[in-house]
Amino acid sequence: MPQPKQERALHTRSRIIRAAAEVFNEYNFAEASLSKIVSRAGVTMGAIYFHFSSKEELAKAVMSEQAADMPLPHGEDGLQKLIDITIDMAHQLQHNVLLRAGVRLAVEQGAFGVADDAAYVLWIERLREQLVAASERGELLSGIEVDEFARVLVGAYTGTQLLSQITTGHTDLPERITNLWRYLLPGVATPGVISQLRLGPRTAEQEL
Amino acid sequence: MPQPKQERALHTRSRIIRAAAEVFNEYNFAEASLSKIVSRAGVTMGAIYFHFSSKEELAKAVMSEQAADMPLPHGEDGLQKLIDITIDMAHQLQHNVLLRAGVRLAVEQGAFGVADDAAYVLWIERLREQLVAASERGELLSGIEVDEFARVLVGAYTGTQLLSQITTGHTDLPERITNLWRYLLPGVATPGVISQLRLGPRTAEQEL
Repeated sequence: MPQPKQERALHTRSRIIRAAAEVFNEYNFAEASLSKIVSRAGVTMGAIYFHFSSKEELAKAVMSEQAADMPLPHGEDGLQKLIDITIDMAHQLQHNVLLRAGVRLAVEQGAFGVADDAAYVLWIERLREQLVAASERGELLSGIEVDEFARVLVGAYTGTQLLSQITTGHTDLPERITNLWRYLLPGVATPGVISQLRLGPRTAEQEL
Repeated sequence: MPQPKQERALHTRSRIIRAAAEVFNEYNFAEASLSKIVSRAGVTMGAIYFHFSSKEELAKAVMSEQAADMPLPHGEDGLQKLIDITIDMAHQLQHNVLLRAGVRLAVEQGAFGVADDAAYVLWIERLREQLVAASERGELLSGIEVDEFARVLVGAYTGTQLLSQITTGHTDLPERITNLWRYLLPGVATPGVISQLRLGPRTAEQEL
């Protein structure tokens, strides 16, 4: 059981990450200063340096938290849940501050000298789990390599959200992800399975 | 016919863009100073400011030149040429300095406050032309919208190259693009056409 002191430290750490995500969303990396993050989080500069050695380290923490933190949609593991995760994420990218900042930093990290694939590896693993379940349920065409397709999917998704962000600020992202699936599914799933899949958001009734 | 003076100005401009591409490749955006570009290009700071109002404007020029400048592979327009363009580009991204810098800047531009989709629009248009030809040749499944699929393809390609860059410095990019096509083609092309397509680089014999 964590001691009160450790609990406080963890609380401060997550407050800093949250404030950093807000600042990284509103400003580009150069402008997102530690002093802006300090004042947003309501902590001291000392508290930030206790947890993070630099702005780059803080950016890395935001990148991995976005992937670790996101709740998965309900439902049985398999191809429908995989699609639901990607559509959910497309909606979340429109307003979830931590996810927006984490994904933006993961894409733009080269501009500030970071090359950290941790967030991508986490997403590949998460989507791969659903593909393994889909394979066990007989939803995939024979010969589909789940590791390889998980990588293809995360790559395709990453660029799709980048284009959507640059051209519409993520407004058209859910539609773009639905389109991506329409082209990808015939190469992955059996025709009988495809006809049963829902490529848009769940209706209120389906949520129940 | 351009006057000698205009010719010299164009020559200087392209020398600056070339030098900028080299510097943007070697350093991240913050470190890629105009003074580094000046000394690499062998021009004066005044010459740079005659052509470009800021480092951001110079970055935009590199982004659009990479798309405008790349020669297309030979062969008749259509699906095979579309695939050849994407595989060629995967190899070029390993060593073509202007292309590498332009694509990197297009991906990372948000980090320095630029949101310019010109390079993406150019690539979408270029790939769309091949899809229109493919459609006229009867290579596409009925109901495929060439505009939409061109956008899907550029999005998927952009993210695929980003993941390849972060994890292997583009070494595995040709293989990743071949994989992407294996999953996309069944959603786009007729089975008879797919069996005729080559998803890897041309052999020496095919180059003749």
